Amino acid sequence: MLDRPSGKDGGAPEVVVLRLPQYVRTLGELLRRDVEVVSSEQMGALLQMTPAQIRKDLSYFGRFGKQGRGYPVRYLQGELRHVLGLERAWNACLVGVGRLGRAIVGYPGFTPEGFHIVAAFEADQRQVGQTIGDMVVQPFSALEKAIKERDVRIGIVAVPAAQAQGVIDRLVESGVRAIMNYAPMSPQVPPGVQVRNIDPILALQSMTYYLKQG
Amino acid sequence: MLDRPSGKDGGAPEVVVLRLPQYVRTLGELLRRDVEVVSSEQMGALLQMTPAQIRKDLSYFGRFGKQGRGYPVRYLQGELRHVLGLERAWNACLVGVGRLGRAIVGYPGFTPEGFHIVAAFEADQRQVGQTIGDMVVQPFSALEKAIKERDVRIGIVAVPAAQAQGVIDRLVESGVRAIMNYAPMSPQVPPGVQVRNIDPILALQSMTYYLKQG
Repeated sequence: MLDRPSGKDGGAPEVVVLRLPQYVRTLGELLRRDVEVVSSEQMGALLQMTPAQIRKDLSYFGRFGKQGRGYPVRYLQGELRHVLGLERAWNACLVGVGRLGRAIVGYPGFTPEGFHIVAAFEADQRQVGQTIGDMVVQPFSALEKAIKERDVRIGIVAVPAAQAQGVIDRLVESGVRAIMNYAPMSPQVPPGVQVRNIDPILALQSMTYYLKQG
Repeated sequence: MLDRPSGKDGGAPEVVVLRLPQYVRTLGELLRRDVEVVSSEQMGALLQMTPAQIRKDLSYFGRFGKQGRGYPVRYLQGELRHVLGLERAWNACLVGVGRLGRAIVGYPGFTPEGFHIVAAFEADQRQVGQTIGDMVVQPFSALEKAIKERDVRIGIVAVPAAQAQGVIDRLVESGVRAIMNYAPMSPQVPPGVQVRNIDPILALQSMTYYLKQG
């Protein structure tokens, strides 16, 4: 049985929550290989973590296996998907329909995972009314109304860095509590708002440290 | 003066190294606003960290300010850029020239930061010989030779998930020690090879946990 965290503050540290999607993905890969039971040692090898860390991470969310028997893969994956809220679909909106925004809409990975970009906004009036994917680009002024009408819970930000904080502020004022930010800047958000930065430059710059060490 | 880490194992924990590029970016934003000195309190507010954490992180790399006087912004940024190896340019290659690969080559952020995509490879023979940006797409069999000739130190992987591990293995065998992976999978690499995954699905899936908590 799954012990759900009791309070609104959850109980699991953020760093553990950040790892959970990787667990779900790895379990999915095992399922596709018809693996029915997996040990924390095997999970650790696949995720490049120690077995003890795997067991500790999972213990925040419940007891998923019997001592010495390993975890039942399908059950564990289903429970972790439930913990993450992945058994339902989530609507997102895109702000910024330049080259990056169009690449995001064209990315084939969102829909199969239950993430639907249902509205696109742009401050540049010349872009408003054009189509992107199967959406008509809306003016930025329509943001709040569309977010309410379409139950948009996630904002995807693909505007230039200088405009990003203003866009994020408007999304948050409109009730959005999850921001996926592609602009190369560090957003400021109030408590209770989640931000994930998709930032290839920061990723590269943290690797050159090690390249330089030789 | 900057005390550089003495050994090959560096000394700074990886989690600190991962934050350094954000420090560099934030210091750059301060410079553009003509801020010459910054306190750990101000840095902490901008980076949503505690001042103590800022001071501790920086202490791994040297003593950059005098007690109670704050950090000189330009000097600190220069030193941290040096620590990260950002005072020089780095060559990268792209593997996979589908829609995602083309968006990556079109991304305007790499060149100004000193990251140059100098070669593009594709396993699909029909794409070989086409142009992408200012490159001619090369066959995957030309990988090792081109990596040596062009001093490619970073591999950018934009192939489907099922092919990604094989591509990454080949990059590593060819001497690449830094992988930026856009494929939705968890690469396995030997010690000494850095991987950063650019993965919007994992980012979204770790936010829905909090959306679900309400």
